[in-house]
Amino acid sequence: MGPSMPDDFEQMWAELAPIGRSAVSGGYFRQPFTSPERELRAWFDEQAVARGMRVQEDPFGNVVAWWEPERLGPSRLLIGSHLDSVLDGGAYDGPLGVVSSFAAIDRLRERGVVPTRPIGVAAFAEEEGSRFGLACLGSRLATGATIWEAARELRDRDGTAFGEVVAGGASDLLDGVGCYVELHVEQGRDLVDRGRAIGVASRIWPHGRYRVDIRGTANHAGTTRMEDRHDPMLTYAMTALAANKQARVSGQRATFGRLETAPNSTNSVPSSVTAWLDLRAESDEHLAELVATITRQADERAERDGTTLTVTAESVSGSTEFDSDLATRIAVDHAGGDWPAIPTQAGHDAGILSAQGIPSAMIFVRNPTGVSHSPAEHAEVADCLVGVDALAETLERLAT
Amino acid sequence: MGPSMPDDFEQMWAELAPIGRSAVSGGYFRQPFTSPERELRAWFDEQAVARGMRVQEDPFGNVVAWWEPERLGPSRLLIGSHLDSVLDGGAYDGPLGVVSSFAAIDRLRERGVVPTRPIGVAAFAEEEGSRFGLACLGSRLATGATIWEAARELRDRDGTAFGEVVAGGASDLLDGVGCYVELHVEQGRDLVDRGRAIGVASRIWPHGRYRVDIRGTANHAGTTRMEDRHDPMLTYAMTALAANKQARVSGQRATFGRLETAPNSTNSVPSSVTAWLDLRAESDEHLAELVATITRQADERAERDGTTLTVTAESVSGSTEFDSDLATRIAVDHAGGDWPAIPTQAGHDAGILSAQGIPSAMIFVRNPTGVSHSPAEHAEVADCLVGVDALAETLERLAT
Repeated sequence: MGPSMPDDFEQMWAELAPIGRSAVSGGYFRQPFTSPERELRAWFDEQAVARGMRVQEDPFGNVVAWWEPERLGPSRLLIGSHLDSVLDGGAYDGPLGVVSSFAAIDRLRERGVVPTRPIGVAAFAEEEGSRFGLACLGSRLATGATIWEAARELRDRDGTAFGEVVAGGASDLLDGVGCYVELHVEQGRDLVDRGRAIGVASRIWPHGRYRVDIRGTANHAGTTRMEDRHDPMLTYAMTALAANKQARVSGQRATFGRLETAPNSTNSVPSSVTAWLDLRAESDEHLAELVATITRQADERAERDGTTLTVTAESVSGSTEFDSDLATRIAVDHAGGDWPAIPTQAGHDAGILSAQGIPSAMIFVRNPTGVSHSPAEHAEVADCLVGVDALAETLERLAT
Repeated sequence: MGPSMPDDFEQMWAELAPIGRSAVSGGYFRQPFTSPERELRAWFDEQAVARGMRVQEDPFGNVVAWWEPERLGPSRLLIGSHLDSVLDGGAYDGPLGVVSSFAAIDRLRERGVVPTRPIGVAAFAEEEGSRFGLACLGSRLATGATIWEAARELRDRDGTAFGEVVAGGASDLLDGVGCYVELHVEQGRDLVDRGRAIGVASRIWPHGRYRVDIRGTANHAGTTRMEDRHDPMLTYAMTALAANKQARVSGQRATFGRLETAPNSTNSVPSSVTAWLDLRAESDEHLAELVATITRQADERAERDGTTLTVTAESVSGSTEFDSDLATRIAVDHAGGDWPAIPTQAGHDAGILSAQGIPSAMIFVRNPTGVSHSPAEHAEVADCLVGVDALAETLERLAT
């Protein structure tokens, strides 16, 4: 390991720091196919060119920079992550994996390591689903998990269709890819509790996104007696509390983070409330039970309020088990002991590739607070550099 | 009463019907100083011109059409209402008073009645506060209840200041006005319960608008354990239910109709929720007690959630008693019996003028469902025509 390596990592990190950052919150707004995302893409291309890597893109906004020193072996090794963020998100979720991938390649090269198979650094598009509402959209399309004819109709909040911002068609980006390894900041405190800088993912919890539409009767906020109202806000409020309680007592996760009220007028009882419920559970059965319980409690309150309620599943991802052989090859028999295997409650492109038959693994870097999807998301530089080491060692194990 | 009168009323009504109407909901979006509001103003000017009335406007967007047949008597009589609507509101709230005012003048003229004092038909600006957030903004400025230096800084949702859309300065619109009578659709079911087509307002309940700012910690919706969250949505949900319950048990009114969530992302625990609480109570003491009780319960929940909560009064209007002498002169000794006196929980320009020392009264027209501030708001044509009769009779009593 040459002494210049930490500097390379930190320089790349510093270059990304201002892109799409809000001066107000300090958080990131890196939605796909927007001005910040074009800057990120330009940065990605510069990194590839500086390393003599070939850039391959597909018609969905996904991109891979290939290191093909000898073109040995048909089975390609893919590493990487994504560059987009949630609305007002943190710096690490996504970019840490891309920056660490370039830095790991630099380490191999400085040591004179020559891979026996092509290595690609991927940046998948719209991983967060912050614009078109479907998480891992880029990897879903690249793997065929989602078909173009369905994705093209997805619309952002301004009504722009996904089909208007990308060319669409078919992707050959994953042709010949034999496995995928994604480094990612941990989004909980498992590694903190274990006192370890890095870990390897064992599985991803099932995840569902549901749209809850509640309709009532708009009315005057002053003159309408409380007992004459059909107020969808009350049905929503009880549903939000019920979802929280059910998730809490069962050890699962339930969140209402997005809400639209109509007409959203201070002096009117609203006519409707639309809210999005994000659920994660340790098994498919727990997920189904959780949404059923919340829906039943919401229905009961709707009946009492004289409102109507519908719950629509916008996306449901079943449990994903990562390839245990691959995880074992990556995680065991290190000087400091095996890297711990931990589950995650977050969806990732690695989960999509895994579910579509590409053996995949994830390396997590410790997050001291566990906070993620927030401007306060953080990882210590020292832990990030352990992550780069781990990724470089993984490349040596898998590609030499 | 000439046979052409109902037709005049219905023709004016038909002319207004399409202006600012949403084809989707059937409701009205007549926000001040927008394209629909300019159409309404052009219609108003046409009505004045057709009747040979002089149009006087002030630098706040308020307008009066004057019938000054003999310029007798210095004390002017003002009737009218407003033309703006809440977001997705009904057709009657406001325009019914303006249309009925012109129709009542037509009746006097057809009967050959000549008033002994000038009669003006007013259309006050931004009565609903749907754009700049302060209800009765036009009449507050015309009476001096709100000063221009404060009002000019009010901003709409797009950040446009009130001072950018009106000239501002001073208003002489109410100079010499001795009393004001506003006809308005009833916004409750009091007249339905009494079986009467019209009534006279006795008083307006106190009314407060409060902004509730709740701040928590943004975090990942999947990976953050429920017990590690500081979720402002939960604090909000409990506050909404508590406000409803407190208002219900005490016979007052509490509504959360407007809400903003940040970052409003499906897979993030929100960082903040801002909600607007609309309260109406039968007395100033009841209002103060209601907001204090709700705030205390919200604070308790905020402490439990690890969030912070502030409640800011954006506007508070004390109880308004209408001029009882004026109400008596209007309401008593009719062929069908006295018109009933009823309180209202809604704010009105007549309340502002009354509080500022201009004797004012209101005539309510029966609303069969009580629904208001909604596309479903309605009044029967027959009841509206009784309202025109009542207003014409009132003009005869007060101005001849």
